[in-house]
Amino acid sequence: MNKVITIGREFGSGGRELAKRLSELLGYAYYDKEIVSEIAKRTSLAENYVKQVIEHSPRLYFPSTTGRTLHAHTIGSDYMIHHHATIYAEQANVLREMADTSDCIIVGRCADYILRDREPLRLFVYADMDAKVARCRARDPEEELSDKALRKKIKRVDRNRAKYYQYYTGKKWGACRNYDLCVNTSSASVEALARMLADLIRGSAAEEARTK
Amino acid sequence: MNKVITIGREFGSGGRELAKRLSELLGYAYYDKEIVSEIAKRTSLAENYVKQVIEHSPRLYFPSTTGRTLHAHTIGSDYMIHHHATIYAEQANVLREMADTSDCIIVGRCADYILRDREPLRLFVYADMDAKVARCRARDPEEELSDKALRKKIKRVDRNRAKYYQYYTGKKWGACRNYDLCVNTSSASVEALARMLADLIRGSAAEEARTK
Repeated sequence: MNKVITIGREFGSGGRELAKRLSELLGYAYYDKEIVSEIAKRTSLAENYVKQVIEHSPRLYFPSTTGRTLHAHTIGSDYMIHHHATIYAEQANVLREMADTSDCIIVGRCADYILRDREPLRLFVYADMDAKVARCRARDPEEELSDKALRKKIKRVDRNRAKYYQYYTGKKWGACRNYDLCVNTSSASVEALARMLADLIRGSAAEEARTK
Repeated sequence: MNKVITIGREFGSGGRELAKRLSELLGYAYYDKEIVSEIAKRTSLAENYVKQVIEHSPRLYFPSTTGRTLHAHTIGSDYMIHHHATIYAEQANVLREMADTSDCIIVGRCADYILRDREPLRLFVYADMDAKVARCRARDPEEELSDKALRKKIKRVDRNRAKYYQYYTGKKWGACRNYDLCVNTSSASVEALARMLADLIRGSAAEEARTK
């Protein structure tokens, strides 16, 4: 069975960078945005649309009130919900094929849950808000949002990730119980963390081989 | 500044064993029950009494109703609350002295919070309920409690730890945000985990020295 590492991550925590570096160090395939492109290809939906749909929990599309004036909105929502289900099903297929192909690292997309029968190493990467704001600024020096607005954005993105995860897995996103290892990047260099995690994973694989 | 590692752990998660093994591998001092003995010595309270007091959150002693019939209970509670404060203050002194003396690993006792100015590496060790029950049975083959009763005991101990932590730190025990690394021992050998964590900590220290 191929080795699978899944990485859940807070926005601005450096989780994606950690995943990329880990994949280079371990020689594992790395999947992140590739998943969305692949789903778009298979469902014949526009990539941007797929991205927009999977960034929101289906629950968000249910109208909070009912009535004639909401009719058009409701019809729109029905489509959205239908697409959500289609996209989620295709996502599961794509992830399984990726895990079948080679050792791999998958960022986000409820991969820890969808691929649970492959017994992935489930990482969650998080950081304090100040560290996340600083990382966002370092990543994009031309970011024009104020600190306050950036914090609001980070909270919004993470809230949507939590809702999406809760909707499809029934579990709490970021609660350590759902992961094997949770890593705080607030006061650590992601580069060094990746090196150490790669050692840990190599050590663990060696250990497994030794005890078999 | 001496290196300090603090370990919060769920009952039955193997956190204490991990701490002991880590201390052997790294050559750090290891403090766990020694803290209670030292507090007892300094406060002239019986060791068992200290243990009993610090295993419960002070909040538990507040009567939920008021009235004459609770008078005796309230007086008893006043003493308990007073002792709680004395013991907590002494605990803080003991922990600081331990951190001043040498590199060390401290299990429980809100050490991550009390020693926050020493920038400890804050670990939290947890496991699934089934794994915790199995570990308790392996640790004590003569345990006479049924599985159901053992689960109840594990939940009770952890609930008290959470309340104690919340009372003194204002933070949620076991929420990954309060730690640097959270480690799930459900499907890992504690011995192997300790070896890997020791490598990680040695690597991190080397990295720190390298970048200074």
